[in-house]
Amino acid sequence: MKQSPFQTLSSKEETLGRFKIIQDVVIVNNHKQPYDYLKIKAGVSILAFYNNEIIIQRQFRYPVNSWQWEIPGGFIDLGETPEQAAIRELKEETGYNVDEITSLSSFHPSFGSTNEIIYLFLAKCSSQSDKNLEYGEVIETQTISIDKMHELVKKGEFMHGAGLAAWARYLSSKF
Amino acid sequence: MKQSPFQTLSSKEETLGRFKIIQDVVIVNNHKQPYDYLKIKAGVSILAFYNNEIIIQRQFRYPVNSWQWEIPGGFIDLGETPEQAAIRELKEETGYNVDEITSLSSFHPSFGSTNEIIYLFLAKCSSQSDKNLEYGEVIETQTISIDKMHELVKKGEFMHGAGLAAWARYLSSKF
Repeated sequence: MKQSPFQTLSSKEETLGRFKIIQDVVIVNNHKQPYDYLKIKAGVSILAFYNNEIIIQRQFRYPVNSWQWEIPGGFIDLGETPEQAAIRELKEETGYNVDEITSLSSFHPSFGSTNEIIYLFLAKCSSQSDKNLEYGEVIETQTISIDKMHELVKKGEFMHGAGLAAWARYLSSKF
Repeated sequence: MKQSPFQTLSSKEETLGRFKIIQDVVIVNNHKQPYDYLKIKAGVSILAFYNNEIIIQRQFRYPVNSWQWEIPGGFIDLGETPEQAAIRELKEETGYNVDEITSLSSFHPSFGSTNEIIYLFLAKCSSQSDKNLEYGEVIETQTISIDKMHELVKKGEFMHGAGLAAWARYLSSKF
């Protein structure tokens, strides 16, 4: 693996609202320039099946001012492994209990402007109990067939970045 | 479609480095709370084929401190349509000229914290000329087979959010 073409000259971190912004000065191509990016906590997203159907959510997302289809997910808490976070988030958001879980590897939602990494998982669930939503979460859960998922993805109705990443990993794992 | 469960009480915009942060106060579930999110320019990403192979890039991404596989993309300039931006970015970053281009619809990389939308395209190219990289871009371009792409995705080596989204749309479009 070749080395980084970037050399860091200075680095500072600023906080604005809930965001932490790293403001570095770097040398790249013999040229000195600023490089700002966001520091974001690592997360998980879970493509989970119940009775051969996909557990999917409908949630209003304020930043894009619309109802969105998505798969369950959230941040990894301190001291948790990604897998533990996936099992916890799935239970909290949907009530489903995980029987089997395997990794679909991780990805970066936006590596040009954040350091964010999301660990993706494939899970099988066979039972559901109470869910435990965080304050301010407005989430409806349902299950849909694999054919319906293909249709939502194909038509562009499913717009969730982490959900599409998990779907890509799942489909490529069949080849 | 049901209405938004959010009511906006106030909104302000702050700039820190290259980021614009919207700081709203909202009411949701009868509860008043702050809602911060990033305002990000709309972008494009292109899953492009040349001789039945995929045009893929290798680029060092400073925020995640590693070399990454990715598909071409960038921001939409003022006055451009998403399709025009896709054709321009592909040409600038890789030198390939687009013969045919179709939409793979749009997606949101991170709708919990940004308003970003990325328009995805499927393109066919038959010729290549000079590329025109922006200052500070360190990009190598190559083409890989569809089987190799499946392998990079399956093994988790391909970690590019927009690239995985385009790949999911492309694969589901075959079903």
